[in-house]
Amino acid sequence: MSTSGAPSGSAPHRFDPNFTDAVINAMGPNTDPRLRVVMSSLVRHLHDFTREVELTVDEWMAGVKFINLIGQTSTPTRNEAHRMSDVLGLESLVDEIAHKHVNESGEEPTSSSILGPFWSPHAPFRELGGSIIQNPAPNGQTTLMHGVITDLDTKKPITGAVIDIWQASANGRYDFQDPDNQSPNNLRGKFRTNEKGEYWFYCYKPTAYSLPTDGAAGELFKALDRHPMRPAHIHLMMTAEGYKPVTTQIYPRDDPYVSNDTVFAVKDDLLIDFVPKTDDPKATLDLTYNVRLAPRDGKTAAMDGVARL
Amino acid sequence: MSTSGAPSGSAPHRFDPNFTDAVINAMGPNTDPRLRVVMSSLVRHLHDFTREVELTVDEWMAGVKFINLIGQTSTPTRNEAHRMSDVLGLESLVDEIAHKHVNESGEEPTSSSILGPFWSPHAPFRELGGSIIQNPAPNGQTTLMHGVITDLDTKKPITGAVIDIWQASANGRYDFQDPDNQSPNNLRGKFRTNEKGEYWFYCYKPTAYSLPTDGAAGELFKALDRHPMRPAHIHLMMTAEGYKPVTTQIYPRDDPYVSNDTVFAVKDDLLIDFVPKTDDPKATLDLTYNVRLAPRDGKTAAMDGVARL
Repeated sequence: MSTSGAPSGSAPHRFDPNFTDAVINAMGPNTDPRLRVVMSSLVRHLHDFTREVELTVDEWMAGVKFINLIGQTSTPTRNEAHRMSDVLGLESLVDEIAHKHVNESGEEPTSSSILGPFWSPHAPFRELGGSIIQNPAPNGQTTLMHGVITDLDTKKPITGAVIDIWQASANGRYDFQDPDNQSPNNLRGKFRTNEKGEYWFYCYKPTAYSLPTDGAAGELFKALDRHPMRPAHIHLMMTAEGYKPVTTQIYPRDDPYVSNDTVFAVKDDLLIDFVPKTDDPKATLDLTYNVRLAPRDGKTAAMDGVARL
Repeated sequence: MSTSGAPSGSAPHRFDPNFTDAVINAMGPNTDPRLRVVMSSLVRHLHDFTREVELTVDEWMAGVKFINLIGQTSTPTRNEAHRMSDVLGLESLVDEIAHKHVNESGEEPTSSSILGPFWSPHAPFRELGGSIIQNPAPNGQTTLMHGVITDLDTKKPITGAVIDIWQASANGRYDFQDPDNQSPNNLRGKFRTNEKGEYWFYCYKPTAYSLPTDGAAGELFKALDRHPMRPAHIHLMMTAEGYKPVTTQIYPRDDPYVSNDTVFAVKDDLLIDFVPKTDDPKATLDLTYNVRLAPRDGKTAAMDGVARL
């Protein structure tokens, strides 16, 4: 590749040196300033990619068809663009960018992970000690999940914190993917911590499952010789007045896919251990999961060498 | 931005230095080698973009919704992903990459330009001297378009070359966008050059028009404070046995949008002049347009400083 003709910010190339700037400069004066920053970078990277691989007409057209397929795979209960961004690591990366937090003592709150496309704003509040299992599944392993939600800085329990949980059933499907077997809000629920910051409820030990492979993501998995499996996981969203919310997922440590999650969302401190439970007729497994939330106005440590732009 | 933690090929950043490589390395051993090159570059640029602008969760989700909207705007007769790639300059860039050709004398064939989403494989052959105007439009300015198709190297006329023309009607719409006013293949046709390499037929002087703004591209135009106008143009595709095909567009020099085409497809040597015609009862304008085609096996000049990778 020649080293001549590099426009500002782009890699050197042998093509029209003014082209990318012309596309960027087509944005009018009323473009939102932040959108201008985002789109300028996006256009420059898209063009750099295109030049770097010398994308052919056939490859470009295959990409065009694929982009259309994404939206055409989506339905009111299926978000394929969200899934595609997960499969390319984008949601996990955005999550990392959004949630870097270390306090003055060098402690970190409970790690976040991606939301995924299955969260629902309609999950009901349930009583402490209740169960999110509304439609029992043949192979479901009922678990008593419990823990304490504490303040990262003071270590004190947080009363009235909300833990919102959602998970797939033992067949690997969420309620709205599986209307024949599951009623709305099966395996979903919100719980409020008591005065000791405690929560407890019944759920299933989660099951590894395949992302749907009949749409755009499935085409990509095939072309890239990748498996479509997610490790078993429970989705959680913790919120409390005055604290930064945390959306995360937790994974059984012994799941074979924790080291090769197809959406790149596993972090070491999100691995959990289910242990046999013999003293509760309602559950065969026990799971302790404690949560640390960072105060909204808490002091964030200066991060040497990782200063923002 | 810190200068530490730069993984291979990516810009320096303060995030997990192994993340992008992990996504790229998820491709399995049976991935097509060229696809591996393309996807590696695409993933790296997408991640670099995301880190560079520190894309927020809300911005990422807006992008997810927008990607879905593209495919949902498309129909069997409307290709919004194709249009979107045009609006971001991608088709024009791919076209430039594909069609760099200079012969030993430093001469270039007729410049190519983008195909656009309106070409049809079903255009009928018509007789030389025929008209592509099947459904006259009130404001159409009929033009006798004619020229000679020659060999770039020998300068000899090419007999039996095919010139495939398509254009919007005077209302700015192509046949399949406008079924109430236009029958299929209105303003489309293929012609074969005679033994002198000549072609001639009747068409309209083209009209500037707006891209459809009721879908994804329309949202983008609004957000980026950009106009949706294309300069008036005639689409052409020239093919001949033994020659490299040329797909292009030609533009009236006096059109106000030739300097700010919303799909970035205008090149200087594609500007043309319509002149008044008084000796033909069928036409009020005359357009001469000659074409140079490069032999498929013709020698391409070494291009100093523009060697390929």
